[in-house]
Amino acid sequence: MRDLNAIGRIGIGNRGGVTRLVFSIKELRSRQVLIHLMRQAGLAINIDGIGNIFGRLEGGDQKAPAVLAGSHLDTVIHGGKYDGPVGVIGALEAIRTINENKIPIRAPLEVVCFVGEESSRFGFSTLGSSLVAGEVHAKDLANAVDAQGTKLADVLSGLGIAPKKLHGLARDPKTVKAYLELHIEQGPILEAIGKRIGLVTSIAAPSRFRIIFTGQADHSGTTPMEMRKDALVAAAQLIEFIEKTCRQYSSMAKGRVVGTVGAMKIEPGVINAVPGRAELLVDIRGITAQSKDRVARMVKQEAQNIARKRAIGVEVLTIREEDPVPLDKRLLGVTKAICEERKIIYEIMPSGAGHDAMQMAKITPAGMIFIPSQRGISHNPLEWTAPDDIGLGAQLLMETMIRVANESL
Amino acid sequence: MRDLNAIGRIGIGNRGGVTRLVFSIKELRSRQVLIHLMRQAGLAINIDGIGNIFGRLEGGDQKAPAVLAGSHLDTVIHGGKYDGPVGVIGALEAIRTINENKIPIRAPLEVVCFVGEESSRFGFSTLGSSLVAGEVHAKDLANAVDAQGTKLADVLSGLGIAPKKLHGLARDPKTVKAYLELHIEQGPILEAIGKRIGLVTSIAAPSRFRIIFTGQADHSGTTPMEMRKDALVAAAQLIEFIEKTCRQYSSMAKGRVVGTVGAMKIEPGVINAVPGRAELLVDIRGITAQSKDRVARMVKQEAQNIARKRAIGVEVLTIREEDPVPLDKRLLGVTKAICEERKIIYEIMPSGAGHDAMQMAKITPAGMIFIPSQRGISHNPLEWTAPDDIGLGAQLLMETMIRVANESL
Repeated sequence: MRDLNAIGRIGIGNRGGVTRLVFSIKELRSRQVLIHLMRQAGLAINIDGIGNIFGRLEGGDQKAPAVLAGSHLDTVIHGGKYDGPVGVIGALEAIRTINENKIPIRAPLEVVCFVGEESSRFGFSTLGSSLVAGEVHAKDLANAVDAQGTKLADVLSGLGIAPKKLHGLARDPKTVKAYLELHIEQGPILEAIGKRIGLVTSIAAPSRFRIIFTGQADHSGTTPMEMRKDALVAAAQLIEFIEKTCRQYSSMAKGRVVGTVGAMKIEPGVINAVPGRAELLVDIRGITAQSKDRVARMVKQEAQNIARKRAIGVEVLTIREEDPVPLDKRLLGVTKAICEERKIIYEIMPSGAGHDAMQMAKITPAGMIFIPSQRGISHNPLEWTAPDDIGLGAQLLMETMIRVANESL
Repeated sequence: MRDLNAIGRIGIGNRGGVTRLVFSIKELRSRQVLIHLMRQAGLAINIDGIGNIFGRLEGGDQKAPAVLAGSHLDTVIHGGKYDGPVGVIGALEAIRTINENKIPIRAPLEVVCFVGEESSRFGFSTLGSSLVAGEVHAKDLANAVDAQGTKLADVLSGLGIAPKKLHGLARDPKTVKAYLELHIEQGPILEAIGKRIGLVTSIAAPSRFRIIFTGQADHSGTTPMEMRKDALVAAAQLIEFIEKTCRQYSSMAKGRVVGTVGAMKIEPGVINAVPGRAELLVDIRGITAQSKDRVARMVKQEAQNIARKRAIGVEVLTIREEDPVPLDKRLLGVTKAICEERKIIYEIMPSGAGHDAMQMAKITPAGMIFIPSQRGISHNPLEWTAPDDIGLGAQLLMETMIRVANESL
């Protein structure tokens, strides 16, 4: 908690919000503090070309692939102090405890701090872990620009990082045995069901659409109901349909689908005009590609049906379609077995939000441990997790690391 | 048409939009052109303290109350050339024709041009006719400010008009026998049913509300459907309810109610957050106070029901509640009789939009004649009415003025 609070004070604002955007002076300072803590713990430090930090404790077999555990230190704008740092400091504390208590391990252990998990500055999420997983294209990086108009390429050059060399950062999968990530849930489920540990089965991925209904803007006083082509009422019907359909597919068995219309634009948007245009941003997620895609198809179909019945236009533009990422069943089995031995009441659950584990799963067995978020609040200064829960999560992470380092998966 | 086009060229912009905001140099110029046309027609001109223009033709009995006909010359921003001028120039042409053809009339006839019917500049609608009807309070006028921050009081002073003297403009009802207004429909009904004349029964008035649903903003990925308090879905249900209910009350017999949600604001309004707040602007109109108020009550009640079922908050704020204005049945009888004699196929209909006739109805029998608007478009450069329809409307206005001037109502 002392180390977590030390990181949490870097970039703290006057209303308790923490802002450590990737590559900002505050974010770089948090990495320096972490490096200092790693040195104090006696770890061998390795920093890769983008700035991902690896702090290594050797085990009995130096040639064995390492068990990695970590997360990120960057934050959104005016965020909290738990999203990310809990996983980095939790892993550091686990390795420190193993080292201090001379617990025998066979495989090496590494604390990882990934650069730029949040998309808040450059629109890229999981930047550092994507590179480690061999996934980022230098061209996309070169085009990324922040809200101040600063190019990511210029930021990297300023820090002495040549963007062209970034494709060489992929880590050889043979050197990694597993990746584990402790993270706050960022949702309300654990608190609601009164459990302190969540074991994550998979990471839901969003399908995102921009849906535009085009009717006819008319005078709200002179246009009879039966002669209107109101784009907003069409949009309202679709919003209700999304809720109704996602509720039908919200059980674990049906893929825990969630669907949200989070933003909307109406034109002309004045009190005395029938809306002629309504644009919706739709976000649909699920823990299986099949369930998510089925609901996404139903929503797109219903948009067409509504438009046809109302004799108005509709356009469905895909912003993004990603497949959900299943996490490793054997790792989940290890954490589950430990919970049962220790009488820890856990919940098997998916992750609704994205994490570095999503990238690492591409090159190694990956697992995640969730701890409760008070009222489900995250990306907000009110983000809070009880110290006892953080302790329990770190304990479970440590025991899992020991077992994975010493046994074959 | 020549005079109408002359007025229409004043304030015309590069894409055909006409902008003559009240008291702007363009609007004042249009009044000067009208005064010139009235003088040419041999009318006696009287301009009152706010700038309303009356052009009078004496009849056989100079002491008889006058038959007034007119409308306004001011426009919205980037509007059309028919909304207003058709009624002023139509009345001028009617009186001119009566004079040129030496048609005997008993009561005097007056063309009226009211100042500031549109609310576009100072938020006040029917400014000039309200003063004539004795309805405007000097205090409200003193507080009115335009988008540039210019006070109405300063504009009036600049033109040599003392705001304090405005309450003396009310016209003695004994000097007025009737008020008639020719106007474009600004709606799609006449075109749709293939009729060229609408005889107006009443002017619908709006009830306007601001309805705010307050739920809980949550992460769109991590919050299961059953744990959400989505303010937007609540709003969507209300939008659908408003359409459904207004359709039930849309017939003439049921009060021709129309209801519109024209504007909406969502917070936080991003694709990855469940909306925690949704604010709707609702406009409900009807031709009887009873039907409009009944629907408004149902909408407010349903907002409460939706909020209760979803366990979220709701607030209903009244912006404005006005009673519909019935027009004079005897005047409607006169225009109807003329239409039947002349085999003009007419429609008896309400007005969805407000007009100067609404104010004049407070001091004298008032009647309105509508002519078709192409595609129902108004307050737009695309506003258009066929010259033949304008001619027919002016003809009907003239015959009505003659009959009303010569007969007792």
